[in-house]
This record gives sequence, C-alpha cells and structure tokens, in this order.
Amino acid sequence: MEKSFTLNELAVLVEGEVVGDGNLQISGLNGIDYADAGEITFITSAKKTGQLAGCKASACIVPMECADLDLPCIRVQNPDLAAAVIHNHLLEVKFEAQGVVQPTHIGNKCSIPDEVTIGPMVCIGDRVTIGERVLIYPGVVLGSDTVIGDDTVLHANVSVAQGSIIGKRVMIHANASIGSDGFGYATDQSGNHVKKPQVGNVQIDDDVDIGANSCVDRAAFGTTRIRRGVKIDNQVMVAHNVDVGENSILVGQVGIAGSTSLGRNVVLGAKAGLAGHLKIEDRVMVAGMGGVHTNLKAGTVVGGVPAIDIKKWGKATASYARLPEMRKDLKKLRRDVDKLLDFINNSGGETDRERKEE
Amino acid sequence: MEKSFTLNELAVLVEGEVVGDGNLQISGLNGIDYADAGEITFITSAKKTGQLAGCKASACIVPMECADLDLPCIRVQNPDLAAAVIHNHLLEVKFEAQGVVQPTHIGNKCSIPDEVTIGPMVCIGDRVTIGERVLIYPGVVLGSDTVIGDDTVLHANVSVAQGSIIGKRVMIHANASIGSDGFGYATDQSGNHVKKPQVGNVQIDDDVDIGANSCVDRAAFGTTRIRRGVKIDNQVMVAHNVDVGENSILVGQVGIAGSTSLGRNVVLGAKAGLAGHLKIEDRVMVAGMGGVHTNLKAGTVVGGVPAIDIKKWGKATASYARLPEMRKDLKKLRRDVDKLLDFINNSGGETDRERKEE
Amino acid sequence: MEKSFTLNELAVLVEGEVVGDGNLQISGLNGIDYADAGEITFITSAKKTGQLAGCKASACIVPMECADLDLPCIRVQNPDLAAAVIHNHLLEVKFEAQGVVQPTHIGNKCSIPDEVTIGPMVCIGDRVTIGERVLIYPGVVLGSDTVIGDDTVLHANVSVAQGSIIGKRVMIHANASIGSDGFGYATDQSGNHVKKPQVGNVQIDDDVDIGANSCVDRAAFGTTRIRRGVKIDNQVMVAHNVDVGENSILVGQVGIAGSTSLGRNVVLGAKAGLAGHLKIEDRVMVAGMGGVHTNLKAGTVVGGVPAIDIKKWGKATASYARLPEMRKDLKKLRRDVDKLLDFINNSGGETDRERKEE
Repeated sequence: MEKSFTLNELAVLVEGEVVGDGNLQISGLNGIDYADAGEITFITSAKKTGQLAGCKASACIVPMECADLDLPCIRVQNPDLAAAVIHNHLLEVKFEAQGVVQPTHIGNKCSIPDEVTIGPMVCIGDRVTIGERVLIYPGVVLGSDTVIGDDTVLHANVSVAQGSIIGKRVMIHANASIGSDGFGYATDQSGNHVKKPQVGNVQIDDDVDIGANSCVDRAAFGTTRIRRGVKIDNQVMVAHNVDVGENSILVGQVGIAGSTSLGRNVVLGAKAGLAGHLKIEDRVMVAGMGGVHTNLKAGTVVGGVPAIDIKKWGKATASYARLPEMRKDLKKLRRDVDKLLDFINNSGGETDRERKEE
Repeated sequence: MEKSFTLNELAVLVEGEVVGDGNLQISGLNGIDYADAGEITFITSAKKTGQLAGCKASACIVPMECADLDLPCIRVQNPDLAAAVIHNHLLEVKFEAQGVVQPTHIGNKCSIPDEVTIGPMVCIGDRVTIGERVLIYPGVVLGSDTVIGDDTVLHANVSVAQGSIIGKRVMIHANASIGSDGFGYATDQSGNHVKKPQVGNVQIDDDVDIGANSCVDRAAFGTTRIRRGVKIDNQVMVAHNVDVGENSILVGQVGIAGSTSLGRNVVLGAKAGLAGHLKIEDRVMVAGMGGVHTNLKAGTVVGGVPAIDIKKWGKATASYARLPEMRKDLKKLRRDVDKLLDFINNSGGETDRERKEE
Repeated sequence: MEKSFTLNELAVLVEGEVVGDGNLQISGLNGIDYADAGEITFITSAKKTGQLAGCKASACIVPMECADLDLPCIRVQNPDLAAAVIHNHLLEVKFEAQGVVQPTHIGNKCSIPDEVTIGPMVCIGDRVTIGERVLIYPGVVLGSDTVIGDDTVLHANVSVAQGSIIGKRVMIHANASIGSDGFGYATDQSGNHVKKPQVGNVQIDDDVDIGANSCVDRAAFGTTRIRRGVKIDNQVMVAHNVDVGENSILVGQVGIAGSTSLGRNVVLGAKAGLAGHLKIEDRVMVAGMGGVHTNLKAGTVVGGVPAIDIKKWGKATASYARLPEMRKDLKKLRRDVDKLLDFINNSGGETDRERKEE
C-alpha cells in the first residue's frame, strides 16, 4: 500500500539538489530518532549532522551548506519546509468515501455529495451544504444552514452552530465549538444582565486549521471571520466579531476579545490575550503570556502584561528580580545624601535650604 | 413570519420617548453597519450620531441628550440596554416543540414533558427531570438524577454529570462540562496521589449562561453553586465547591480554584485567576489576566499578578519598562555619592566614617 | 445497599490507632459540615478540633497529636490521606457490567470483553482493544487502533484519536481530546504555513487522571507520553512530544509546549505555562500563572513570568507596587546629588569634573 518515490522525484518537489544515488526509492519520512531503512529523514541545521550517526534512514534532507554526508541527501534552502512538503506527498492518499455511516441524523433540504465520509452519530441540521470529499468524524453536530467546503475535515464531537460558513481544506479538531453565541450583555439598574442577541455568524476561509477544544464565537451582528491559511492551536478563544487576517498563527490557549482585528501573518504566542476593539496590524508578534490592550503597528513585537516592546520587556524582566535590592540601594543612598546635605549645611552651604523649599 | 411593532409599542418596553412617527412599523433590530429599511438601530453615545449618515435603518434608539436626528428615534437613558430589550422582544418566538427526535437514549423513571425539543443523539440517564420548553441540542449527555429547569437550552455536545441541578432559562453552550469530578488528591509517602472521592454536585440557578467549553466541577462534599443571573464566557474553569454570587460575570478563560466564594456582581476579566479558599466580596472587579490570592473587600478593583489595587497596578506597569534605566540611574547616583563622600572625608568631615559604621 | 465497616477495620487500612469504641459501625465518610450519624468525618489539623462541636458524625479521623475528643477517633499520621483511603474503601462497589448499550457503532476486528459498560451513542473504530471492566460514557469516540486498559473510565463526549494507547485505571473526564494533531507548520516564502504531518501517537500510562476539556496532542513522530500516576486538571493543554513524568500534577488551565519533558512529581500551578523543548526535572514546582522558558533543576521552585526563584519572585512582587514611588525617590536623589556636586564644585572641588568625564 505504501507509495514509493525516487530521491530525484522528491527533490523536484522542493527544488532540491540530490547528492548521491538519485534513483534510491523512498517510501516514508521520519524523525531522526525514528527513521528506518527506506525512509528519508531531515536535519534543519548543519550543526545537527552529528545526530545522523546512528540513524537508519536511507537518505536525508539537509541545508544547502551541508556536504560530504555518508548517506544520499537532498540539499534545500529550507529543510523544515522541504520535509513537510515531502512528508505530505508521501502520505497523500486518494480519498476513500464511506458515504454516510448510520446511525446519523440528516435534516431537510441538505446537499450532500456521494464522495464524503460522514461518521456515525453525526447530526446535521436543515439546509446544510457539504462539499466533495468532506470527512466528518463521529459525534459532530452541524447546525442548520451551515456550509462545509470541499476536502474539509471535522474531527470527533466538533460543534458547528447554525449559519456558520466553513471553507475548503479546513481542519477542525475534536471538541471545538464554532459559532456559539458571543458574550454580550447590557446591565440594568438592578445589576441584572440582559442578553444581547447574537444574530451574526462565523465564516472560516480556506486552509484554516482550528485546534481541539477551541472556540470561535458567532458575531453579534455581521460575521466573525477567520481568513485563509490561519492556523489556530488548541483551547484558543476567538470572541464575537473578531477578524483574524490571512496566515496568522494563534498558539495554544490564546484569547482574543470582541471586535479586535488582526492583519496578516500575525503571531500570538501561547496564552497571549488581546483586549477588545483593537487593530493589530500585519506581522505583529506577541510573546507567550503577553497581554495587549492597545493597537499595534505592522511588524511590532511585544511581550508582557500590559505588553510593551519585546526588547524593553526583556530588559525589564531581567531587572525585576533586583527590585528589592534596588529599594535597599535607594534607602542607603537617601541616608548618605541626607548626611551629605547635613554636613554641607552645617558647613554654611545653601544646599539644605534649597532642598527644603521643594 | 416576522413580527412587527410600532415605534410607540417598542418605546413603552424601555420607558423611552418617541421622536418622530410613533406609528412607524419596525420588524427588526440591527447594528448600524447592517441595518436595513424596516429595522431599528441604536447608538450608545451622542458622539456617534455622525455614524448614522449612510445608515439605512428606519429608526434609531438614542441617548436622552440626542435631538434633531434625521430619522425617528426612541430616546432612552441607556441605549445599550434598550437595544437589548427591544431586540429580544422582536426575536421572541413561541417555543415550537419537536418532542424527542430519534435516535435518543432515555433512561428509566425520567420525567419529560411533551413541550420539549430533545435533539437526536442525546443520552439521558435514569431519574432525570426535564422542565417545560427545554431545548436540548444533539450530542448532549445528561447523567442520572439531573434536573433541568423550564426554558433551559443545552447546546451541542454539552455534558451534565449525574446529580447536577440546573435552573430555569439557563443556557449552556457547546462542549461545556458540568459536574465533572473536582481535582482533589491526597499524596502518600511515595509521592503517589490518592483520589479524594468527589461526592458532591453542581447547582446552577435560574438565568445563568455558561459559555462553550467551560467547566463547572462537582463539589467534593456539598455543592458547587452558580447563582442566579451569573454569566460565564467560554473556556472558564470553576473548580469544586466554588460559590459564584448573583449576577457575577466571568469573562473568557477565567479560572477559579476550589472553595473560593464570590459575592454579587463580581466581574472577573478575561484570563483572570483566583486562588482557592478566598472570599471575594460583592462588586469586586479583577482586570484581565489578574491573579488574586487574597480575600477582597466589597467594591475592590484590582489588577496584576499578584493582584493589587488597580490604580497602583496601572502606575507600576507604567514604570516597569523603566526598570533598566532606573538601575543605571541608581549606579550612577551611587558613584556620585561615593565621590562626594570621599571628597568630604578628605576635607576632614566625619561623614565617611559614619557611613562605614552602618 | 450501603457497606458498613467497624472503626477497627477502617483503622487497619490506614495504620491508624482507634480511640473509643472500635466496634462502632461506619457506613460513610463526609465533610465536617455534611456528616451524619453513622458516618466518619476528618480533621487535618489539631487546631480544627473546635469545628467538631456541632458535627453529627459518629467518628473522626484525626492527626496523631489529637487526644480527648468527645467522639471515637482513628488517629493517623496523615488524616487527609487516611480520609481518602477510607472514603474510597467505603464507596468501593463491584463493577456492574451493562455490556454495550445500543445504539453504538463498533468497527471491525475490535476486542471487547463482556465485563464492560459501553454507553449508547459511543463510536469505536476498527481494531480497538478494550480492557476488562472499562466504563465508557455516552458520546465517546474512540479512533481506530486505540487501546483502553482495564478499569479505565472515559466520561461523556471524550474523543480519543486513532492509535492512542491508554493504560489501566485511567479516568478521562468529559469533552477531553486525546490524540489530536500537534501544532506544527513550516512556513514558505509567501508566509503560507504547510502542515507537518503528525504521525506519532499518545500513550497514557496507568492511574492517570485527565480533566474535562483537556487536550493531549499526538506526537509529530514518536509518542506524547503521560506517565503513571499523573493527575491533570481541567482545560490543560499538553502539546506534541511532551513527556510528563510519574506522579506529576498539572493544575487547571496549564499549558505545556512541544517536546518539553517533566520529571517525576513535578507540580505546575494553575495557568502555568511551559515553553517548548525544556527539561524540567523531578519535583520542580511552578507557581500558578508562572511562565517558564528555561530548563529547571530538580527541586527548583519558581514563579512569575518569566519564572524566577519563588522567594526572589515573592520579594520582587512586594516591591512592584512601589515602583512609581521609587522613580520619584530616584529623581529627588538625582536633584539633591546634583546640587551637592554643584556646591562642592563651586567650593573648588574636583568632583564635578570627574563626573562629567564618565
């Protein structure tokens, strides 16, 4: 069943240069500690060449600067990327549709092609449109009027609420919640909270990944939008009316409050939090655990709570542990200076009087 | 199907004052960017009047100080609240019971009225009591001996463990977990952890909302309690034996450790964390990402980790980035003062000796 | 139906010493506020003796130093542990297998013994092996080639992805996601992210507990490993290729980034975050909300972001609120010292010149 390619064929995929036997057959890719004969492995830096010593792989993807290795190689600019591309190619399988596996509930007026696999225990509402080669794992619930694009995969127990629009080649992992109500209340004079109806929806564009147990809330009005190529890790929270720009990355346990917009290729480190109604421009990076409550210009890199320039933050954190010592130094200085002032004052100087005036 | 009301009728609901044609028919409410003819929109401040320029809405809810708008208005004290009340009124629909949609598993000795909708793939344990007009989405699991109050909505794949008591008009969003075991262990001499049985339950009072993927753990003994009107956002964690007071608000990704009690109208900002066994009194507010490990008196507002008075915290954060500069200044001062001390000492003063004595 | 034991029998379980009537029958254990006649309660410190005043319990587990109580006691070294052991013993019930409750989907070539309870709406893939006395709640999804050890309990709507290996006496709470893809991408020159296939798996050893809505991701290559006796609270995120050592404790909302390894008996406080590729040795403790991005030696205790020695952190946090005051003090000192320098300079000293040279 395994597919097999020559080293030359794989090199073409990644614009790489073969060193050694280009006709070598490769049937898999594996990490350096796991690779076996017939597999290709990879190193991301020339410094790691030594790690290949005991490795059983038959070939290796290496950076351009690598030469004279004991095994056949594909030399590339970006071995990490080349490994991903080759690995995906080796794993590529034709979609094998199993159709709709019972028991399943499917509502009225749905459009479901033959070329799908819809696992048992799946519930699909009314007027749902499913694309070609969609794979829906057991326990998934799709609300009415949802749209699922071609080649999309919804893992076990994912919930997609009514009206959500999901693109092509999207992958949503287990127990994620798409399209739940946004968190919006108006408070009356007695302190009771009146729910603001959340009548918008969620739109997830092509090639988006969403991690397990993550949430993307539906908009109050309009649409919460996750744009093309965005990758979202586990347990991330995207609130109502947020707009996440193309190819942005939200690492695990990130939270984004309502109506904040992110540009393209923004990176939010693990557990970072963004306040609501912010404009975060292209390529902004927030260090893990950072808390942002101001707009950020393109390319800004910040850390800390509240988040500041990453370099300033790095320096400040380095001084933080010294705070108690600094306080002692300050007290000591104060005492010394007071003595000096006293001394000079007693010598007939004016300094002390001036000081008292302030 | 759409309901329609006159401006006068809507104004009565919110004790508002109509300006313009009170007989105008309104069939919906929408945000300023989305509203269409026949709909009413709202502005929350007189400053936003300009935004109404291109708006297609037929009427607007406005603050009292607004006058002379181009379209009919309802003037109110709190437009945000009035919009929520009117929007809910316009959306109000008669509950349409679909009954129990198969396949569904229902245990023994359950009490389920006719006026319910229980989606397919729902599992209900033994001796479960369901109220009138309850709506249970697909994939929900109700443990044995649970009680669900009238008009409550449980979204897809929610899990409610055995013995949980849920009130009226409660809404629990997708993939939330109610009544899981609390996290309690006793550790033996070898470092192994022995589970403390969690034999209590969870009680959720009327008018509570709980967000997607949130967790409320059952008590070790007794009851974990979420009181009337509490609103909980997504991915919030409420540990065993916590008691959340009426109308409190827990924003996304908040965590509350075991046995902590919250008073009324407490507000915990996003990602805030509370240690266990604390007493947090009425109207306390914790800024987002704040970490609290002390009791807090009524009305206290805190921020930071560990959390301190919000104003002090604000000022401290403003100084934080200056820490490295402050350390430089301190060193410079030390050198200058040492020189001064040396100078005076050489002049025959006593200061230096005194300094050395310390 | 309730089991009942004499005080003497219970004392033997915990190497305790009976004070009073050893033949007293005990049928339950309860907290001091909840206990009734026929039940035993416990106090963890001699100081809490007073709390027993209104307690209706028939007996009490007490620390060794307690004497002369009004009710029969079991004196032990560690009352918390003894209470857990005795409580578990009192609650112990013979497993009552209900078999496979329909509707359920079970794939091909599965091995499922008779002595199990597999709730309705459960989906089991192909070639799955289930141990004896396993209890699977409704809505659980087990991927193909998973293994579930004896006496393991999977709560409602848990998802276990293909190839996951789960040990004996493991408990996984509602809506947890085991074996979802790790978060790994290589980025091309256009900023598009290419998924790195996640072809490893998850292995969870015996006696592990995993909380509701927690996630343990599958490895990129190899295995993400949760070792024997680890206890994981709710909403915890364990990334790909992490290795959590025996008996470690991860409190609610903790996050661990990829490839980090933890030794034995590590304790991560609530919301703590660990960066990737770290080596955290035995018995390390991280305070709640701490953020670690360096390796940590055995027994280290840290807090803060970035995490530092817990004592240093404690002192630094105490000074943090004083930062604005410190800045004022610094400015004042600078002014005073400048005046002193001026004064001395005007007196013909050299100090000012030297100062300017720096």
